[in-house]
Amino acid sequence: MRYFIELSYNGTAYHGWQNQPNAISVQEVLEKSLSVLFKEKTAIVGAGRTDAGVHASQMFAHFDSDASFEAEALKYKLNTFLPKDIAVHDIFRVKEDAHARFDAQSREYLYRISVRKDVFNYDKSYYVKPTLDVEKMNKAAQILLQYKDFQCFSKSKTDVKTYNCTIQHAAWNLQNEELQFTISANRFLRNMVRAIVGTLVNIGLGKLEVEDMHTIIKSKDRGEAGYSVPGHALYLTKVVYPESIKYDK
Amino acid sequence: MRYFIELSYNGTAYHGWQNQPNAISVQEVLEKSLSVLFKEKTAIVGAGRTDAGVHASQMFAHFDSDASFEAEALKYKLNTFLPKDIAVHDIFRVKEDAHARFDAQSREYLYRISVRKDVFNYDKSYYVKPTLDVEKMNKAAQILLQYKDFQCFSKSKTDVKTYNCTIQHAAWNLQNEELQFTISANRFLRNMVRAIVGTLVNIGLGKLEVEDMHTIIKSKDRGEAGYSVPGHALYLTKVVYPESIKYDK
Repeated sequence: MRYFIELSYNGTAYHGWQNQPNAISVQEVLEKSLSVLFKEKTAIVGAGRTDAGVHASQMFAHFDSDASFEAEALKYKLNTFLPKDIAVHDIFRVKEDAHARFDAQSREYLYRISVRKDVFNYDKSYYVKPTLDVEKMNKAAQILLQYKDFQCFSKSKTDVKTYNCTIQHAAWNLQNEELQFTISANRFLRNMVRAIVGTLVNIGLGKLEVEDMHTIIKSKDRGEAGYSVPGHALYLTKVVYPESIKYDK
Repeated sequence: MRYFIELSYNGTAYHGWQNQPNAISVQEVLEKSLSVLFKEKTAIVGAGRTDAGVHASQMFAHFDSDASFEAEALKYKLNTFLPKDIAVHDIFRVKEDAHARFDAQSREYLYRISVRKDVFNYDKSYYVKPTLDVEKMNKAAQILLQYKDFQCFSKSKTDVKTYNCTIQHAAWNLQNEELQFTISANRFLRNMVRAIVGTLVNIGLGKLEVEDMHTIIKSKDRGEAGYSVPGHALYLTKVVYPESIKYDK
């Protein structure tokens, strides 16, 4: 029987979501906890990867188990067992062929920029001292919605078949003393959000013009785009699935 | 010449605001930084004390100096010099007799309670697992506004002349996955907000009834009120001064 887990994690202590040799990952910690509670090796498949230090306020993963358990009780046990930087919020049964990665219809990310010294979020937000032109950054963000191929914002070492993404939303908002960038798309390429934010910051600083966004995207060249902003201020905030994945009793 | 500093601090690493022997305080760190920059011993007087671990998103202090400086430049230097958990947001000249503590007309505090495991705020919010009855907690909070003497919520070792406070506002709000309690008054007694929150949590848990609030306040006995909730989830958020303290050119 297949189950989905909804979880959140503070990525500060982890080398990203995905299992890897010689470094601790969120996936590894979650798999170990589930395996201990189920008393058998239990693998999980996540909705996607996040890089080292990147957080998730909403993430999904699936696992298979024939054990009989009560979801609320398992959730409670898991949260007690897991470290304080990983939390499970929901566990629910799905159809046998439902897949946390392949069935995800869209994903949303948040990037946080502090516009003044922030004593509470210095490890969870990116502090940019010079004044940023938010209006220009929003105009440039809107240009993203006119394109499909985002090779210019992708890491070069990647094994994707296509660089096409459908961006549904991309905008900056000033919340308290913080600039928040929200972007959603059907899929994201490796390092894509951080490269987009770095490019938009350069536009906000006046190092690039709004119209340069067209040239950058058309170039398909990562070297043309802006720098990659730090991962500690990036959050996966939403993964959307069709209702049809749910198990019908 | 007298100046006001507006600042914020993350209290996690400090034994409160006030200078004390054998323990690091926010006041001490700020005084040392100012003294180094001014090249002479510079004392500061804060708007009030905060306990160990308590934070401030807005705090004021005053100092005297005959040095000539440009406020923006000093602010910039101070922020570079100070650790990342203390930030200066404004420095402005006030009248010679303006006083950060005595001229404060009202203060506002925020208390944060997580209602689910929070991977981002485990060190800045208080996690309460059982469900809280927020409606009852809000009804009980309103009762506070009918009284003046709050000895029942005060630490016994205190040298105040009166236990009278005028509470202007006290209410709970659910923000995302967090219960936020905001309270403002002309003054607060030692440990008062934490004892009030502990009493309200006991009401929310059903351990006390809403109407017990009257009995507790009338008793003037700290032993009748609820427990003191942890300091790491408490924030001084606002200190209000009359416009008249400002220096007229």
